[in-house]
Amino acid sequence: MRLRHKPWAEEFITENAHIVVPNPEEQKGKWAALFGNDNPLHIEVGTGKGQFITGMALQNPDINYIGIELFPSVIVCAVEKVLAAETPKNLRLLKVDGAELENYFEKGEIDRVYLNFSDPWPKKRHAKRRLTHASFLSIYERLLPDNGEIHFKTDNRGLFEFSLVSMNEYGMKLKYVSLDLHAEMPENNIMTEYEEKFSAKGQPIYRLESQFVTK
Amino acid sequence: MRLRHKPWAEEFITENAHIVVPNPEEQKGKWAALFGNDNPLHIEVGTGKGQFITGMALQNPDINYIGIELFPSVIVCAVEKVLAAETPKNLRLLKVDGAELENYFEKGEIDRVYLNFSDPWPKKRHAKRRLTHASFLSIYERLLPDNGEIHFKTDNRGLFEFSLVSMNEYGMKLKYVSLDLHAEMPENNIMTEYEEKFSAKGQPIYRLESQFVTK
Ligand SMILES: C[S@@+](CC[C@H](N)C(=O)[O-])C[C@H]1O[C@@H](n2cnc3c(N)ncnc32)[C@H](O)[C@@H]1O
Ligand SMILES: C[S@@+](CC[C@H](N)C(=O)[O-])C[C@H]1O[C@@H](n2cnc3c(N)ncnc32)[C@H](O)[C@@H]1O
Repeated sequence: MRLRHKPWAEEFITENAHIVVPNPEEQKGKWAALFGNDNPLHIEVGTGKGQFITGMALQNPDINYIGIELFPSVIVCAVEKVLAAETPKNLRLLKVDGAELENYFEKGEIDRVYLNFSDPWPKKRHAKRRLTHASFLSIYERLLPDNGEIHFKTDNRGLFEFSLVSMNEYGMKLKYVSLDLHAEMPENNIMTEYEEKFSAKGQPIYRLESQFVTK
Repeated sequence: MRLRHKPWAEEFITENAHIVVPNPEEQKGKWAALFGNDNPLHIEVGTGKGQFITGMALQNPDINYIGIELFPSVIVCAVEKVLAAETPKNLRLLKVDGAELENYFEKGEIDRVYLNFSDPWPKKRHAKRRLTHASFLSIYERLLPDNGEIHFKTDNRGLFEFSLVSMNEYGMKLKYVSLDLHAEMPENNIMTEYEEKFSAKGQPIYRLESQFVTK
């Protein structure tokens, strides 16, 4: 099913309110209640078509997942992925802007942030839009618990170089860095749509895990 | 000229005492006097056959350079490179162990450390031998001035991943990271022997600049 036009997309999203949470600002501080348990909550910012977050939810039933995607025309594909996976109970989507996470979550409510193949914004004057820019790191820091982690994958060399420098500059600990994830291919790696596309072209996939440290 | 046997190498080194400084521990604190000026001093640990340090010395006559290489059979090749370049006045070699730098230099006497294609020591139990292990970083830190820098190039993915994590963990600032130096190829890049070999095979060359920060 393809839904190119926004009105259709909006309607489809509204029909699937059990997946795409409506009025998510009302859930702020109440996500454990929504999921019906106290399991850790991991979010992905820029979920795209949803293969990663759906795969993670199926792989790890004792973790709650929220995929965040701004664009209606993209999130509908993620909804379809979730439906095809028979709507795991530990998974929701939000159609919101990652820059406004603080409207939807309380400090400590999120346990980990995933960033996968985030838009690279290669021009210097757009650096602030990169999801690993200090301005975004400070948002994640305000929401994550002490020692909370960011797990980041990308094929984009410039964005990965920037992110290493940015996270180091921010004072984060780099726990793990791989400059060719698929050379190692950890068993539990769930591929994203972009990861499949770019690794098929032979491009290295970069990955890191970083951690906020209490000062 | 090839000198495979140690006796010949030692003799050749002794004959070229204007290049390979004899009894370098006696120069500790006196390198400016030896060079006859107060220019900054940059050293390379693990110089190998000397193409980089010789090229740097020719490119930057207002910086003094010392190339450090442990093995007689290798340093003789570096001596030949220096002779072929007509023995730049701002360049010397030391046949010593990089782990013992403190025997040869005073705090603040060195302004920058170059590491190029250092031995990767891929086995975990040999991690301490990697020239970017914390134990080596602490040596460089004790010799460099505040905000002193390390410039590091390698083709070795595992070593570069380790070095990013190690330097970050040590509290160093990552000023610059390139995951494909030759895609950018800065004009003033001087290639090392290993760099020519591995980049010809199409392998990416990694490069970073890191800095000690005063706490
Ligand atoms: C390059 S795609 C990658 C999608 C997916 N993560 C993957 O790896 O296949 C980036 C996605 O992030 C979304 N995105 C970009 N900025 C966003 C923001 N500020 N908030 C939410 N989503 C965003 C885009 O709409 C796009 O779908
Ligand atoms: C892989 S080679 C690279 C040579 C050169 N830098 C290049 O890029 O072509 C590493 C060199 O470091 C030297 N080396 C290794 N450990 C050393 C140490 N502790 N002190 C001095 N030299 C060392 C080795 O003898 C070898 O010549």
